Amino acid sequence: MAQLQRVVVSPAQIQDGTITLEKTQSHYLQRVLRLKVGDRFIAMDGQGQTWLAKIGETVATIIEPVAVDSELPHWVTLAIALPKGSGFDEVVRQVSELGVARIVPIISERTLLQPNAKKQARWQKIAAEAAEQSERSIVPLIAEPIQWKKYLQSEPSCGQRFLCWERGDSPALLDALPQAAVELAIGPEGGWTTAEVEAAVAVGYQPVSLGKRILRAVTAAVAVMAIVAAAQERCTATGQQ
Amino acid sequence: MAQLQRVVVSPAQIQDGTITLEKTQSHYLQRVLRLKVGDRFIAMDGQGQTWLAKIGETVATIIEPVAVDSELPHWVTLAIALPKGSGFDEVVRQVSELGVARIVPIISERTLLQPNAKKQARWQKIAAEAAEQSERSIVPLIAEPIQWKKYLQSEPSCGQRFLCWERGDSPALLDALPQAAVELAIGPEGGWTTAEVEAAVAVGYQPVSLGKRILRAVTAAVAVMAIVAAAQERCTATGQQ
Repeated sequence: MAQLQRVVVSPAQIQDGTITLEKTQSHYLQRVLRLKVGDRFIAMDGQGQTWLAKIGETVATIIEPVAVDSELPHWVTLAIALPKGSGFDEVVRQVSELGVARIVPIISERTLLQPNAKKQARWQKIAAEAAEQSERSIVPLIAEPIQWKKYLQSEPSCGQRFLCWERGDSPALLDALPQAAVELAIGPEGGWTTAEVEAAVAVGYQPVSLGKRILRAVTAAVAVMAIVAAAQERCTATGQQ
Repeated sequence: MAQLQRVVVSPAQIQDGTITLEKTQSHYLQRVLRLKVGDRFIAMDGQGQTWLAKIGETVATIIEPVAVDSELPHWVTLAIALPKGSGFDEVVRQVSELGVARIVPIISERTLLQPNAKKQARWQKIAAEAAEQSERSIVPLIAEPIQWKKYLQSEPSCGQRFLCWERGDSPALLDALPQAAVELAIGPEGGWTTAEVEAAVAVGYQPVSLGKRILRAVTAAVAVMAIVAAAQERCTATGQQ
């Protein structure tokens, strides 16, 4: 199945075994990729369901469900302080490839960027593209950008919480990770302020270290997701203990 | 020391406790950063030695050596197939932040880019900037781009060798890593050819998996370095066993 093109469709596009493709999707499959009537592709609803489908004259037809086993065993939420410029686009793409389930764009005290609603839609589109490309069965959800302190007050935890912090004598992330759902927070260029760290610790965040080197925010986010994915898939991937 | 500007100087610039700064370095420190005579900065030779230094009228003066402990315990070499476009710039920057010692740009069968000598110099400059920024004491070395099969024939191993491979039923990288020097190879978009994998295995490369998702080449390289650094610094960072 790896060679077939993947397309994320919304549940509303599927009815009685047929998929009503959006204009942009039809255009992409038929004009850009040059697929013809009868050619197959993979349709995914981005929530765990995946089908083998066939292009028809006006709609696409579902042939059969496809079992996809490419998701991490446990839910990973990343709360990431928005970096300056367009750096967040690449962060969203890379952590989506690496298996994140949910991304919360954080506005911290040292965040310079003031995101607008268009940005959130753009990041969601990038997450869908990355899910297609990396052969995932779910599309990571991009939350609305939110102030860090507001997030700490309002959001219930989505698992054990870790705060990536370049100072202090914190345990290494890899040593601290449980085999369970986790939520990790990555700060902005310049780091979290002391008040932000204290507020996080007060609601149960455990500070962890990403190593002895100072990482840029964009590198830290990708490194965190790579380490979490590797930790969740160790042993399980090979059947070793 | 974290707040002081870091500057990589070559050993030839240092004599009898004085540092003859290059024009671009003087310009950067005095015009861009607005440091004045008497202000301090960190000079590093990129090979493990670091000093506290002071800006003088014509030359800089070394005040004292500085102990920097930000390097990984074991040498990491990454042989990375060149991705298309300018993606390698960001790869060099990110794996340099994460602690790589040596980067070998690889020309594989599916590599489209034909690098020139200017590129190598550019990547070396990016590696130096990343070493300064991440507060490392060594600057990663960028080797000359080389054909994959030629590399396999000519280069002595710089540690246990791993080939990141998205197919096959290989053990997870994190499970396979030793606490020792390692050399890891990351393929191009489209992956290694079967012949390339076979040639690598023949000279001792062990195929390893980066997980169940298909990663772009640029993401794979950064993920590998993040996982290797985390594995080398686990426990050692906290004193746990």
